[in-house]
Amino acid sequence: MEPPVILEIANFSIVSGQGAAFEEAIQRGLSHVASRAKGFKGAKVNRGIENPEHYVLQIFWETLEDHTVGFRGGPLFAEWRALIGPYFAADPSVEHYTLVSKP
Amino acid sequence: MEPPVILEIANFSIVSGQGAAFEEAIQRGLSHVASRAKGFKGAKVNRGIENPEHYVLQIFWETLEDHTVGFRGGPLFAEWRALIGPYFAADPSVEHYTLVSKP
Repeated sequence: MEPPVILEIANFSIVSGQGAAFEEAIQRGLSHVASRAKGFKGAKVNRGIENPEHYVLQIFWETLEDHTVGFRGGPLFAEWRALIGPYFAADPSVEHYTLVSKP
Repeated sequence: MEPPVILEIANFSIVSGQGAAFEEAIQRGLSHVASRAKGFKGAKVNRGIENPEHYVLQIFWETLEDHTVGFRGGPLFAEWRALIGPYFAADPSVEHYTLVSKP
């Protein structure tokens, strides 16, 4: 049986006017860095309509520890943060979820 | 060309101990009520791992107005809120997003 996928939701507030540069950076970070992490199962980047400087990143992980231990505690994390960190206007908030239903 | 899909993200804080009942109610609300709204393109319900009384509902809409005008301003909304509202421990927060990338 497939293990249940874990959904990471990260909320980013970006420095005003830096949206296009941030989008380029996070796409590079996902395709070149995060996607190399063990257990990475895909990602989506979403831009706020009410607040265009608010982004929601969703990353799907095989297990919670693939993110919290493997990725955050491993060598890729510094590379990832170096790419996207310069655009943060505030500390990101990150939580994890399991899928309850998909009607 | 397909119009871009709009992602609604709603954050719900649920009364302690009412998770199972809320999950049943929101599944019924999605399959019997929200799914009948014009422009409804699917949904996912996610439960918090760090905080199991925090749920994230994602609904995909054809246009922003299908949610903000059609659904919220239409006859289905009272039915939907009657099902899930009793479980809220706080006012929900709702924002809308467009997909930037899916690497």
